[in-house]
Parts: sequence; C-alpha cells; structure tokens
Amino acid sequence: MSDTAGTAHLLITCPDRPGIIAAVTNFLVNHNANVTQLDQHATEGTFFARLQFDMPSPALLRETLPKAFGEVVAPRFEMQWKLRVAADKLRCAILVSKHDHALLELLWRWSAGELPVELAGVVSNHPDLADAVGRFKVPFRHVPLAGLSRDDASRAVFDALPEKTDVVVLARYMQILSGEVCARYPNRIINIHHSFLPAFIGANPYQQAFDRGVKIIGATAHYVTADLDEGPIIDQGIAHVSHRYSPLDMKRLGRDLERQVLARAVLWHAEDRILVHGHKTIVFS
Amino acid sequence: MSDTAGTAHLLITCPDRPGIIAAVTNFLVNHNANVTQLDQHATEGTFFARLQFDMPSPALLRETLPKAFGEVVAPRFEMQWKLRVAADKLRCAILVSKHDHALLELLWRWSAGELPVELAGVVSNHPDLADAVGRFKVPFRHVPLAGLSRDDASRAVFDALPEKTDVVVLARYMQILSGEVCARYPNRIINIHHSFLPAFIGANPYQQAFDRGVKIIGATAHYVTADLDEGPIIDQGIAHVSHRYSPLDMKRLGRDLERQVLARAVLWHAEDRILVHGHKTIVFS
Amino acid sequence: MSDTAGTAHLLITCPDRPGIIAAVTNFLVNHNANVTQLDQHATEGTFFARLQFDMPSPALLRETLPKAFGEVVAPRFEMQWKLRVAADKLRCAILVSKHDHALLELLWRWSAGELPVELAGVVSNHPDLADAVGRFKVPFRHVPLAGLSRDDASRAVFDALPEKTDVVVLARYMQILSGEVCARYPNRIINIHHSFLPAFIGANPYQQAFDRGVKIIGATAHYVTADLDEGPIIDQGIAHVSHRYSPLDMKRLGRDLERQVLARAVLWHAEDRILVHGHKTIVFS
Amino acid sequence: MSDTAGTAHLLITCPDRPGIIAAVTNFLVNHNANVTQLDQHATEGTFFARLQFDMPSPALLRETLPKAFGEVVAPRFEMQWKLRVAADKLRCAILVSKHDHALLELLWRWSAGELPVELAGVVSNHPDLADAVGRFKVPFRHVPLAGLSRDDASRAVFDALPEKTDVVVLARYMQILSGEVCARYPNRIINIHHSFLPAFIGANPYQQAFDRGVKIIGATAHYVTADLDEGPIIDQGIAHVSHRYSPLDMKRLGRDLERQVLARAVLWHAEDRILVHGHKTIVFS
Repeated sequence: MSDTAGTAHLLITCPDRPGIIAAVTNFLVNHNANVTQLDQHATEGTFFARLQFDMPSPALLRETLPKAFGEVVAPRFEMQWKLRVAADKLRCAILVSKHDHALLELLWRWSAGELPVELAGVVSNHPDLADAVGRFKVPFRHVPLAGLSRDDASRAVFDALPEKTDVVVLARYMQILSGEVCARYPNRIINIHHSFLPAFIGANPYQQAFDRGVKIIGATAHYVTADLDEGPIIDQGIAHVSHRYSPLDMKRLGRDLERQVLARAVLWHAEDRILVHGHKTIVFS
Repeated sequence: MSDTAGTAHLLITCPDRPGIIAAVTNFLVNHNANVTQLDQHATEGTFFARLQFDMPSPALLRETLPKAFGEVVAPRFEMQWKLRVAADKLRCAILVSKHDHALLELLWRWSAGELPVELAGVVSNHPDLADAVGRFKVPFRHVPLAGLSRDDASRAVFDALPEKTDVVVLARYMQILSGEVCARYPNRIINIHHSFLPAFIGANPYQQAFDRGVKIIGATAHYVTADLDEGPIIDQGIAHVSHRYSPLDMKRLGRDLERQVLARAVLWHAEDRILVHGHKTIVFS
Repeated sequence: MSDTAGTAHLLITCPDRPGIIAAVTNFLVNHNANVTQLDQHATEGTFFARLQFDMPSPALLRETLPKAFGEVVAPRFEMQWKLRVAADKLRCAILVSKHDHALLELLWRWSAGELPVELAGVVSNHPDLADAVGRFKVPFRHVPLAGLSRDDASRAVFDALPEKTDVVVLARYMQILSGEVCARYPNRIINIHHSFLPAFIGANPYQQAFDRGVKIIGATAHYVTADLDEGPIIDQGIAHVSHRYSPLDMKRLGRDLERQVLARAVLWHAEDRILVHGHKTIVFS
Repeated sequence: MSDTAGTAHLLITCPDRPGIIAAVTNFLVNHNANVTQLDQHATEGTFFARLQFDMPSPALLRETLPKAFGEVVAPRFEMQWKLRVAADKLRCAILVSKHDHALLELLWRWSAGELPVELAGVVSNHPDLADAVGRFKVPFRHVPLAGLSRDDASRAVFDALPEKTDVVVLARYMQILSGEVCARYPNRIINIHHSFLPAFIGANPYQQAFDRGVKIIGATAHYVTADLDEGPIIDQGIAHVSHRYSPLDMKRLGRDLERQVLARAVLWHAEDRILVHGHKTIVFS
C-alpha cells in the first residue's frame, strides 16, 4: 500500500482501559479517514497503539484533525500522542567517525528510495568520509574534537547538527556522548552497537567475543541514553561463527550485521513504528 | 496475558471500506468487552481482522453477543465472520503413518500445555504407534487400508475420525487424500510437507534436494486442498546444508524442521490466527 | 558414509609445526587405514586435528594401532591424542530435575538412532521423571538431596552415576555442581544454559531477557567447569522475540532452542568432534 | 591467519582411494611447505581436497613446485588439480544491467579489502552505472545490445570483457547468455538468481513468490551453464516474509539477500574454495 499525500501516522500511549481503539477509530471515521494499519499492545497497565490512515482531503491533516483529536479524544484517555503526516519526512542527521560501512548502507538505501527520511547532513569528527558523502549530494561537516572534554566534544558535534534535526543516527560514531546532548534528543538518537547486548558491553566487542569463544556474534540497534549501552533495544541481529573466525573475520561478518540492523532500525523510526516504554521498545513492524 | 473464561476470538473477512474496525470495536465496547489483541490486513479490496477480547460476564459470549453481532454489525459490512470462545478448545484429530517425530512433538507440546486443543484421537493406517499414543491417554485407532482405492481409503480414515473433529493434522501421514474428504474440512486439514514448497513437490523431497545440490532444505505447513502440495501455505522453516549432508542427514535435519513448523501451524490454527484468502494465508501471529 | 566395525576417530593436540598431518596420514596409510574425514585447525601455536578412518581389519584397531601410534608418531610431535573405535559408544548419563523437554529430546533422538551413545542411565534429584525414562528402558535413579550441602549433594549425585560413565549431560539439572565433581569429568560434563552466554548469567535468564527488552533469546551448550556459566561454549542457538513475548512465551520458545542446541552438542561430543583449547572449543562439525 | 607471498591453494579431484592426503602432504612437507588449511570430501567414488599452505621461499611456488607435483604426485592418483598462488589474484569482470545493489556491494567489499580479486572491469548493456563504477577507479564499458540476437548479444558482451578475465560475475545482469559464451568460462561465471532455486525458475520470481503465498523468499548464487537456472548452486540465503509483504517489499528484502549471497559466492570463488562435481558444488568454506 503506497503512501499518499493524505497518509498519516498516529501514535498513542495511555493508561490501559476498554474503549480506546473504539474511540480513536470512531474519531477517524467521522473525519473520513481510512485506517490502513492498526497495531496495539498493552503491558503492565499501559496501552500502546499505532494507526496508519489515509485522509481524502490532506489539508485537514495538519491542523483540523490534530486539534480535534487533542481536544476530544486525547484528554478522555490521558493520552500521550503524536500525529505525523507521512509526507513530512523526518529530518535525519548521521554522525560518523572513520568506518564507512554503516554510513554507506544508509546512504545507498536512502538514494534507492528505501529510507523515507530527509537526509539533512552528516557530521564527523574526522574529515575522511567527506567525499563519500558528497557524492550523494548530502552536506558533510567536519568537527575536529581533539583536546576537547567529552562534554565539550558532544556539544560541539550536536551544535553542528543541521537545523531542525528530528533524529540522529550514530553510524559507528566512536565517541561517547555526554548526558547533556543525549537529553536533547530523548529516544531520537539511534546507535548501532557491535554485539548482541547485553553481552560484551564496552570497547572492542569482537575481541571480547573471540576471547570468550562464543559461537554467535551480533549487533544491536538501540536508542541512546546517558547510560552507555543501556538504552532501549530496537533490533538485534546475529550470525554464527566457529573456531575458524579470527577477530578480523568476526569484525567483517559483524559489519554486515551492523549495516542491516541499523538500517532496519532507522527505517522503523522513520515510519513511526517504535514506541518506548521505560527502557524497552514496542516495535510495530 | 492469560485467557479467561470470557476470552474470545473474532475473525472477520469482508469487502474493504472505511469504518469496519470502528464499528466492531464500538460494538464490543458497548457489550463491555475489552479488546486485548487486534490485527487487521487489507489486500486486493478485501479486509481481514482478528480481535481477541475478554468479557467480564462470560455467559453472554455464547448467545447474546454473536446474535447481536450477526444482526447489527455483520450485515452492514457483508462480513463472513466467526466468533469463538477460547475456552471451547478445538477438537483435533491427528493422522499418522509410521514416522513418529511429528506426532510425538505434538503430543509432547499438548501434554506440556503448549497446544490449546482437545486432542480427540489419533488415526493411523498402521498399528505401530498405538503404544506411543496410548501413553498420553489419547485414543488411537488403526484403520487398515491395504487394497483400498484412494477414494475408499480416504473415506475409511475420515469416517474413523473422532466425533465433532474440528481440525485434522497430518503428522507425516503418507497417503494422498481424495478430493471428497478434503472438501469435508476446507482449510481445516493441516499437512506438513518436507520441503520448502513450491520446490520439490512430490515424493522423496530430501533425495530431490540432494540430487539438485541445494544449500538449504525446508519444511512447509499448509492447508490441504484437492490439489496436492498446492494448498495455502501457513508457515515454512529452513536449515542450511552443505556437501557433507547425505540424503539421510538431510532427512534427520528435516525432521527437526517438520516438528517445529507443524507445531507452530497447529498452534496458530488453534488460536484462530489464520485466515485464508484464495490460496494464500493471512497469519496474525 | 556409514560407520563400520573398523571406523575410528583420532583426535590430536600438539605444538604447531610443519609435517604433522603428513606424518599422521602416512602412518595410517601404512596401516591400511582409509581416512574418510580430516579436519585441522591451528591457533596461537597449537595444532588440532580430527581424523576419521576405516580399517579393513578392525582387530588391529584396539591394540596394535594405538600402540604403534603412541610409540612412533605421538612422541615426535609431543602430541596429546585419543583414538576411539566408533563402535565403542560412549557411555552417557543424564542428570535432570523436573523439566522434561531436554531429557525427552535426547531420549527420542537416541531411540531414533540419531545419538550414537550408550544411554547408561538417568539420575535425578526428583522422582517425577521416572516413568518417562522407564518407557525407553533406560535405568532411572532418584537421589534425594534435601538438606545436603552443595558439596554433599554433588557427591551424592555423581556417586550414583552408572559405572564407567564417559560423559554426563545436564538436561536442565537445576543444581550447581561442586568443583570437586566437575574435576572428575573435565570437559565431559555438558550443560545447557538458557541464554546466549555471556548474556544473562545466573538465575532466571528469560525473566532477565524480558526485563532488559532484548529482541533475541538464546541457549548455550557448554562444558561445565568449577566457574559457573564460564565453561567452554560448544554451541549456541537463538530465536527472535518481540514486545509481544511474555516471560512465559520466551520460556516456551527457549525450550525449543535448549532441546536443539543440547542435542547437537551431545551428538558432536559422541562423535568426538569437540576439542578444548583453554576455555574455548574447536568443533569439527 | 594472513596470506603471505608464499601462500598457495591446491585443489584436487581424483578417484577416491587410500593414501591421497598422505602423498600430497608428504610432498608438501618435503618441499618445506606448511599446510595451514586442509579440507577433503569423498562422494560417489570421487575424492576432493583443498589445501592451503605457506612456502618460506615463494620463488619455488610458480614453477618448481607445480612441475614436481605434476610429475610425481598427480599422475599416481589420476588427479585433476590446480595450484594457485594466493597473491596472483583472480582477474574478475562484472556484468551488470541497471540494478546497482549487487554491483555496489561487490565494489564496496572490494574497496574495503574484503574481496581478494583484481577488479578488471565492469561491462554493461546500459550506460547508467558508469559513474558509480568510475568512482571506484574501475573501468566501465557500455556495450549496446539493442536489436541483437541472444547469440550476438552474448558474444558482443563477452568480447568486451577485460583481457585475461578469470571469473565473470553477473551482478543482476538481465540478459540470458548463449551456450557458446557459457562454454568459454565453465564454472567461472557466477550468477545471482533472486529466488531459492529450484523454486520460481524464470522471470519475476518475487511476483511468483507473492502469488504463491510463500512465507520465505530467497536468493541463489550459482555457476552459469547453458541450462538456465540449472547450474551448480554455490550458496543460498533466505528471509521470512508475511502476508504484509507486497511484491515490492519482497523485492527490497530480496536485494539484501542477493547482495550477501553473491558477495559470499564471489569470495569463496576468489579463495578457491569451490569444487564442482557434476551439477553440484563442494564448498570448503
């Protein structure tokens, strides 16, 4: 089902009780919306839903509909909610250091029309990938960080983000972010960790995996919080390895996982398929 | 979320148009039902949905609610629909020949409480597995088929099914069924085929796989129709193989796939998670 | 390739240097052996190999051949080695508590001819599974452990093992073993841990996985050492989960993984496919 | 283990009989070679082996060693054999039409040092991908085929291949090759087919998969023979799909499979890990 100018996503979180979906779908029907996707989940007393719908008159989507929803439906159920017009693509910024694999994967998918975001720019603490990014006609900005404290470095990089950035993707960005900048984008910074968390937290997980002698390696996409490697997990992928795999072999195989898992997580975020519940995610994929 | 005495499943198929879910959920709210799961899908002008809900007063579930739904909601949307109380478990019969792996898997899962059906009995064209079945206190019936035509054999076996059988599972039953008995249980006979259909239709698929030199083998659970191996596919599983695998090795590995894939298909059927659309399935798993 | 009376496995560990395989294969050819499988691996200065071969005159296999190998080849390369006649199946004991899934999987595979061991007996700290084991004509021994210290309990259970036990399989045996009994069977006690180690060490890993919100769960077969959950990993399996999975759902899905992963590990051990190097394994599967 | 100037691969196919590996490894030891990898397989009376070894004096590798092997060892066992110095990378040509995903994957892996071939050039029946290839400093040649018969088109494209091409990779090249050009490169043309063969032979397999309602899709890398889609299978990958997947969704997911499976097949070919036996492969991966 292709998106139209009248396609929108509605995300809802509220206390669980009967009648929520009836109220929401009634409201949408009464506004001539046609619901094309609907997912719901309830856990520990909280209700989550994602609705995708089409409006025949897209003009109503940006003002009338959210205003009415906010006045009529949302208060009745104490909802936290977000209504987004699919055509208003999220503005996405990518942070990267020197590894190009995750970055190029995102750029390729984006240029192939698989990633519905507006790629606002790439920021890096190294100049190395400027040309690779330039080829895709995406702005690249180099922010040297040598000598800066973590707080200052984080601030420098985030201050260099494109205007109105909606989501920040760390495509193997090798610097730890300060709590301050994490707080600027709650559940809007996506990182790819090169292990199946919570295993092998910290540096050099492939070497750790090799040393432990595991038979699977993995990659984990998660939202970034001030607690390193502890943010809500969005998706994970794994691959089997054997005693024949050196740490370098694992790193190469792991790159494939990182590319796939990160691209999937960004896609889901771009399509408003992820809801966060405490330090866990609900993914309506 | 555990089932209660008031848990029910509602399956709907109807022409796609706006307002269906609103009408259905409104109806349920007005009858004090709490929707706990809701899945929908629309394709080629047809709308499909599955709702799971809890009624505080289970007494209404069996008569009042379906009567009202059939009078008020269903006609308005030209629905085909089914409402089933989860506690009224489907009566399941298993057909088997001599291989025990798929049968034992089902029996074990059933006895472990993982398969919410009433296991009404096992029918076989061989006596070999009588003891294995007897241990689980499940009735076993041997129906000798030697010398019978396909039509007569099919009829003999199906006439021997336990009373009020709702679903028939072919757990590696090695006889081809006649069109006549297939028609008795439309989309209610589940077979496990030992290949990733549509590859290797027909006899001895592991030998065929070996001869072709494929690097993956598979198993397919599907509903049985009069067209052999052409019924709607419910689920498929695969495993990787190499040149080291003999046909026997493939057969052994394949048994694991068959067990898992068939058990999953039966579970989904038992939970009313499968809708059939032409020769394809919609699985709300 | 089927085993014959003259089939044997030769396992070698020695310092890595040129000429090892030439010397070994020459020796075997000169004794009229036909090598049917050969795997080798070298890492960190150590060489590992597994050879499977057939002798036309099996009589030589048990005395002449090993004697000659021990005098002629092994000392020249400072080898640790083991030569085992495949027909002399390992005597396997299973320890179990109350969960039956891993146990039944092993019993079923064994009875189907898929697990080339001599099943010497099952020992349990509970009487519950006596009947399930008895059906397979395998001895079952109940050893009550109430009130015993870990050391005493471990000793009681291991003293109750069948005579000449070669390998001990913990099929969800819920007691921690003392270092003393671990030392009796170095690299000959196989455990199944219900997580993808090193994640979720310790108790109740499915609850831990649920709490952390991971998107994959796993199971790990490993040799048991005095360091709980730290022994050499033999094999790991995983399955994907979503926010829809309750801890119970994970437990059920995990049971499938545990059954498969443990059965594979026991098979590899039975076929002498596993060599241990420090706290890691080399698996010539 | 990294390759050195003295690293070589030896591939052997011969009638199966005792003593082959002993003779080969003896020969290598006597020439001061150190065998670092050894794989063997016997099936249906034929013996296959791959040895990787290091020679301290690389100078001997190109003439003395193969000459001696050809005179002393090979005739004794009626061997077909190939000895290749790893540093003499295979010259690889890529054929492509308009889809860029498989091509870019190969180019990226090659530029990242993961694909040990000399990328001699890319030939296409369309000019579209000239720039994409040019960025990697790889020659691109456009060969217009409009109006040509299959035979003439095939000849035109193959005549345009770079000099001394060792292996031709069809990275979603959408033309059927004539038997004549297939015969020029026996087992040296690698194609990626976008289904899990033998399912969905022919055009538009994703549409076929959608129409059949399968729950898995796949991709198959195989050597090209005059029989379309019937050549020896090198590797296969699959992904699970559901009723939610449109043909376009399947195509996108399939692209990921195609990229991975083709890249792996080319890597294995480049490392001499594939032996062909009739219409099947032996892959010593």
